[in-house]
Amino acid sequence: MNQSRQYNVGVLGATGTVGQRFIALLAEHPFFTLHALGASARSAGKPYAKAVAWKQTRPIPAAARELVVHECDPEHFKDCAVVFSGLDADVAGEIEQRFRLAELAVFSNAKNYRRDPLVPLIVPLVNTAHFAVLPQQQRLHDPPLSKGFIVTNANCSTTAVVIPLAALERAFGPIESCMVTTLQAISGAGYPGVPSLDIIDNVVPYIAGEEEKIEWETLKILGGLAEGDDGRTAFDMHAGTPLRVSASCTRVPVVEGHTECVAVRFARRPPPSPQQVREALQAYTSEAYAIGCPSAPRHTVFVHEEPDRPQPRLDRDYQAGAGVSVGRVRQCRVLDVKFVVLANNVAIGAATSSIINAEYAVLKGIVGA
Amino acid sequence: MNQSRQYNVGVLGATGTVGQRFIALLAEHPFFTLHALGASARSAGKPYAKAVAWKQTRPIPAAARELVVHECDPEHFKDCAVVFSGLDADVAGEIEQRFRLAELAVFSNAKNYRRDPLVPLIVPLVNTAHFAVLPQQQRLHDPPLSKGFIVTNANCSTTAVVIPLAALERAFGPIESCMVTTLQAISGAGYPGVPSLDIIDNVVPYIAGEEEKIEWETLKILGGLAEGDDGRTAFDMHAGTPLRVSASCTRVPVVEGHTECVAVRFARRPPPSPQQVREALQAYTSEAYAIGCPSAPRHTVFVHEEPDRPQPRLDRDYQAGAGVSVGRVRQCRVLDVKFVVLANNVAIGAATSSIINAEYAVLKGIVGA
Amino acid sequence: MNQSRQYNVGVLGATGTVGQRFIALLAEHPFFTLHALGASARSAGKPYAKAVAWKQTRPIPAAARELVVHECDPEHFKDCAVVFSGLDADVAGEIEQRFRLAELAVFSNAKNYRRDPLVPLIVPLVNTAHFAVLPQQQRLHDPPLSKGFIVTNANCSTTAVVIPLAALERAFGPIESCMVTTLQAISGAGYPGVPSLDIIDNVVPYIAGEEEKIEWETLKILGGLAEGDDGRTAFDMHAGTPLRVSASCTRVPVVEGHTECVAVRFARRPPPSPQQVREALQAYTSEAYAIGCPSAPRHTVFVHEEPDRPQPRLDRDYQAGAGVSVGRVRQCRVLDVKFVVLANNVAIGAATSSIINAEYAVLKGIVGA
Amino acid sequence: MNQSRQYNVGVLGATGTVGQRFIALLAEHPFFTLHALGASARSAGKPYAKAVAWKQTRPIPAAARELVVHECDPEHFKDCAVVFSGLDADVAGEIEQRFRLAELAVFSNAKNYRRDPLVPLIVPLVNTAHFAVLPQQQRLHDPPLSKGFIVTNANCSTTAVVIPLAALERAFGPIESCMVTTLQAISGAGYPGVPSLDIIDNVVPYIAGEEEKIEWETLKILGGLAEGDDGRTAFDMHAGTPLRVSASCTRVPVVEGHTECVAVRFARRPPPSPQQVREALQAYTSEAYAIGCPSAPRHTVFVHEEPDRPQPRLDRDYQAGAGVSVGRVRQCRVLDVKFVVLANNVAIGAATSSIINAEYAVLKGIVGA
Repeated sequence: MNQSRQYNVGVLGATGTVGQRFIALLAEHPFFTLHALGASARSAGKPYAKAVAWKQTRPIPAAARELVVHECDPEHFKDCAVVFSGLDADVAGEIEQRFRLAELAVFSNAKNYRRDPLVPLIVPLVNTAHFAVLPQQQRLHDPPLSKGFIVTNANCSTTAVVIPLAALERAFGPIESCMVTTLQAISGAGYPGVPSLDIIDNVVPYIAGEEEKIEWETLKILGGLAEGDDGRTAFDMHAGTPLRVSASCTRVPVVEGHTECVAVRFARRPPPSPQQVREALQAYTSEAYAIGCPSAPRHTVFVHEEPDRPQPRLDRDYQAGAGVSVGRVRQCRVLDVKFVVLANNVAIGAATSSIINAEYAVLKGIVGA
Repeated sequence: MNQSRQYNVGVLGATGTVGQRFIALLAEHPFFTLHALGASARSAGKPYAKAVAWKQTRPIPAAARELVVHECDPEHFKDCAVVFSGLDADVAGEIEQRFRLAELAVFSNAKNYRRDPLVPLIVPLVNTAHFAVLPQQQRLHDPPLSKGFIVTNANCSTTAVVIPLAALERAFGPIESCMVTTLQAISGAGYPGVPSLDIIDNVVPYIAGEEEKIEWETLKILGGLAEGDDGRTAFDMHAGTPLRVSASCTRVPVVEGHTECVAVRFARRPPPSPQQVREALQAYTSEAYAIGCPSAPRHTVFVHEEPDRPQPRLDRDYQAGAGVSVGRVRQCRVLDVKFVVLANNVAIGAATSSIINAEYAVLKGIVGA
Repeated sequence: MNQSRQYNVGVLGATGTVGQRFIALLAEHPFFTLHALGASARSAGKPYAKAVAWKQTRPIPAAARELVVHECDPEHFKDCAVVFSGLDADVAGEIEQRFRLAELAVFSNAKNYRRDPLVPLIVPLVNTAHFAVLPQQQRLHDPPLSKGFIVTNANCSTTAVVIPLAALERAFGPIESCMVTTLQAISGAGYPGVPSLDIIDNVVPYIAGEEEKIEWETLKILGGLAEGDDGRTAFDMHAGTPLRVSASCTRVPVVEGHTECVAVRFARRPPPSPQQVREALQAYTSEAYAIGCPSAPRHTVFVHEEPDRPQPRLDRDYQAGAGVSVGRVRQCRVLDVKFVVLANNVAIGAATSSIINAEYAVLKGIVGA
Repeated sequence: MNQSRQYNVGVLGATGTVGQRFIALLAEHPFFTLHALGASARSAGKPYAKAVAWKQTRPIPAAARELVVHECDPEHFKDCAVVFSGLDADVAGEIEQRFRLAELAVFSNAKNYRRDPLVPLIVPLVNTAHFAVLPQQQRLHDPPLSKGFIVTNANCSTTAVVIPLAALERAFGPIESCMVTTLQAISGAGYPGVPSLDIIDNVVPYIAGEEEKIEWETLKILGGLAEGDDGRTAFDMHAGTPLRVSASCTRVPVVEGHTECVAVRFARRPPPSPQQVREALQAYTSEAYAIGCPSAPRHTVFVHEEPDRPQPRLDRDYQAGAGVSVGRVRQCRVLDVKFVVLANNVAIGAATSSIINAEYAVLKGIVGA
């Protein structure tokens, strides 16, 4: 699909860590144009370059420097076809709701609506099929909406694991059990985030709420849609073959890139061999890439042959962090197969996912004129 | 048991990372006296302080500074009741064999003899019962030995996991499956070891041979002794209830202390609750401590209640690193129970284990007059 | 001097980073007994172990665990012979004043009174002579005090540099110029302190207010006392030979231990040789050690001969961090001599200095019955 | 100058750290074409992708993957207009000499010929005027050469400091004294380079030979050319106004980017103000950029206004690391002005300098048809 029209976009939470990423990515986007920035009252009224404590490795994009930051009020965003939310969870719930009510298309990286039964939780390299629930979200809203909706994307550590799992399920049918241990980067906690005294020369084997997110979100994302007796569509939470996910989450002294050690057991007996798994991962392609989303990576899953890869420092920027890297695919003595997956938590694990979701919505005509 | 006699001890590989630890620990030992140091020809003839590139946080002990380093030849160690080996694997096999042949009691941290069917692999807080095979080792040696033997202790990452597993098996019977993901410290690789370019702001999800060591050594350590038809005693490798261990090993930018995320499934149904597991871990005591080994920790397993512990930087030095710390005991959706264990890889994971083994041998009269 | 009496002591700011250090050190003190703990209203009423987020590498001392934390009100401290303050600067000014007014002897690590012309700024290995101003502090106070006073110790980065400078001035007469570049540890910023995103794989070449502290405090500490026309004693700020200090402060990813590169020019021509400087540093002794302060180090300045020392990780814990380590003494092409000094910022750079000051005051009878 | 011709280039030491940088940069070069790769006998005969342990964050360029590596023999490079050397010092001397003798234009990052009185030491943003000595180098060679020569560029830590010094001398006349303390990245030591045990949570206040390099190279680079009585041109080592440079070098746990704290004293009295210094630094332009060298940065010196910049993690990749960043320009109480400079040690501090030198030589016709 070719796309020549330009679409104005806004960013909520523009001065935060995820907001900065949105801005860095959108400043170079082929069809999204940075148009409006929202942040707290403290920042409102200032040009972006004055309002932000910019922490990216590239300078503030020229397109954003002089944009005046507004409070997160829909009136400042009414010319936006798409609004991206990098808001903190403590305010995202209420603000995103207000934007949806104002008939705006909200693509949110916040966790607040991920568990909402009307809101899709979409990892764009995995389950764009879940966009199908949006008309129901609008219809059942009070009052009903014609254009406004909320689409969420997954937690960064969930994103890393569901992409290879989706590839494996497409090739080999349902997975029954999955154990995952994460080694997560500090940037996942935002700024100021993790105190340096807690993490230099250290590991923190706990991230509040993170294991629950992986164990629950994975089911919503990998599951299908079910038609209920009441005519409503519901997320089936992988009900056909119950999937048990067990996560152990740790924080490590890495700036960017979540490394996750994953083991899976397939329903199918005998299970695929490690070599078959490698081939299925490498062969997996996303619909988002197929239809031409410009931020979708050509290699959804890049499979390393070297025994000591992927590594966050070396591999997190491959394809601008939009895909995932897998390595060490091998047999597991307890489940069937185990491997290591690396995902850039601030790219495909956050802003990049929201952006691909929005690209998909544009290309599919879900986001309108 | 009280122990007032002093025993001369020697250290092989005295200038290496493990050797330095032996020396730091032995310099303050209540009944071992540093007597002889062995290293490569390059170091031989020099006083220890000149031969070593000392990398410990405390200064070289006075007792070692002026000791002249010898080549690793038994003749220089003939007055030693005990010889500790911190040799590298490429030379340990041959040298340790020569020392045993010279009727010396060798306590080795090297991997070379761990898989030898006549050599016990003893984590002193777990399986001191395996000392029982030493008479057979001496009898079957060619020529038969009266005093010489080799006792090995486990790989550092194995040590961390077998201690809590032993506690759980004592309380709840056999474990059937164990999945472990390690986050290992750089000191586990010796010096110069891991290049800084490979590990700052990075994770290396691979340590050559490490996963195999955990998966195999665990069976030898937790298994029992079986009497064969030929009258020989053999290690049964946990044959009664086959135990499947699956390990994923990673290196993280931590100086000292291996953190391991462990999940287990018990043979017994229903399995114990997390609370029962916590209590069993906390209650576990070692025979080594019971009989008075001075380096054995009072708390073999210290169980943390805080949700974010253990952490290597904060907990690795508790009890001089001689026990292990466990935290986050909770249910596992795939196996039964999961938890985090931390072990000081250079203390109980290496030199301290060898020393407790030797203390045990002295107190039990296995090492003679 | 021998000291067998016990003195009750209190700690203000007991739950903070410096407060935790005070408690760890005082719990093992030969003549100070932890008696009262003060913190914010949020902590008041709780046993210390519940109130604190303990971040030390050794467990909370038994003597402190159950002590109930109070608000920082002098009434709870009236049985204390000495009160140590680890308060944050935003509250220290007012609280310390209240304690002094209540006739308590306050030894403060906070910066608030360091520039007060009546308050001595004492690095106990350098200028205990400045205790002589305390009677004047009490006399000129409104109302006059009989027992209460405030003694401050220096900023951590100042402490590191004034100790060797004092040694050099004692041996070779006044220094005229000093340039110092610091590489400071994150623990100097307290907790949560430096965000990990700011410092992992990074250097921050700026610490607010730090350079000014070094440049000013050094003059007060190394200067003498002058009798004014009004009969008052004043700090002469090294007026005899004006001393120009230029500091550049940076933060580096080190947990503990400030490393500082120092160059000096002496008034005396020709200047001493590097070898003479080494000898003078090694020979320097403090009056605090001489009179028996138990926390004062035997080696005020330990001089390393190896070319690559001191290093924070290896040397910060020598003598429990109570002295400083110097290395690389060599000629400077611009000034006269340059060297590297390392000081443990949380030991001699903070709590240990306060404690030695208090020990000195006790042994000298400045703190009374 | 426009440049449309393509030039074949070779890289010596192609598998090393600097060699990998050369290859990454040259693969995208507008007029250099990677043609031949040289490495040790161990690598010879293999395609580059098999010979190298690639440690860059971007994948091996397609243009290099299949190039067969040769031994460093001129016969394999005879079609190269330019040969870049990233050789280690222990072999660079002999090999580079052989290449020069074979009439090849060698641009070397190695230290071996930097002190050679016939070889220019050129930081391309500073002293391209020194190219003028090449005809003399060729004429005095035995045998005389027509096309072969060696041009060196400076040590990485020298490069960082001479660029701002050159800017200041251009604006304000000669500098008389310079003190510099470096905080150098680990990548400056190559691979495997600094052991992680030496640098995590640590500073090493010593880098062998580094201080001498800064103190000497700065004089050669900033000095002029003098005509001797014998008609020969010599490097005057800044003889007109003797310049005293004093360096203190440290290694810090940073992957890339050397941070240096610099203070200078000008000959001119009164000295320029900090604001004048800022303006002069920002205004400085290089001849290399002016004549169109494609790798020369537009901003030779980028001056930060924020108080806490430059920082290696945030600023090292600005302009692909080809310029330097300066911040914290302020008065110095001992010399005149002090500031912080950051240079990417593997870009402008190494391969990028060699490449700009070669670009300059091409554009000026020094490297021939």
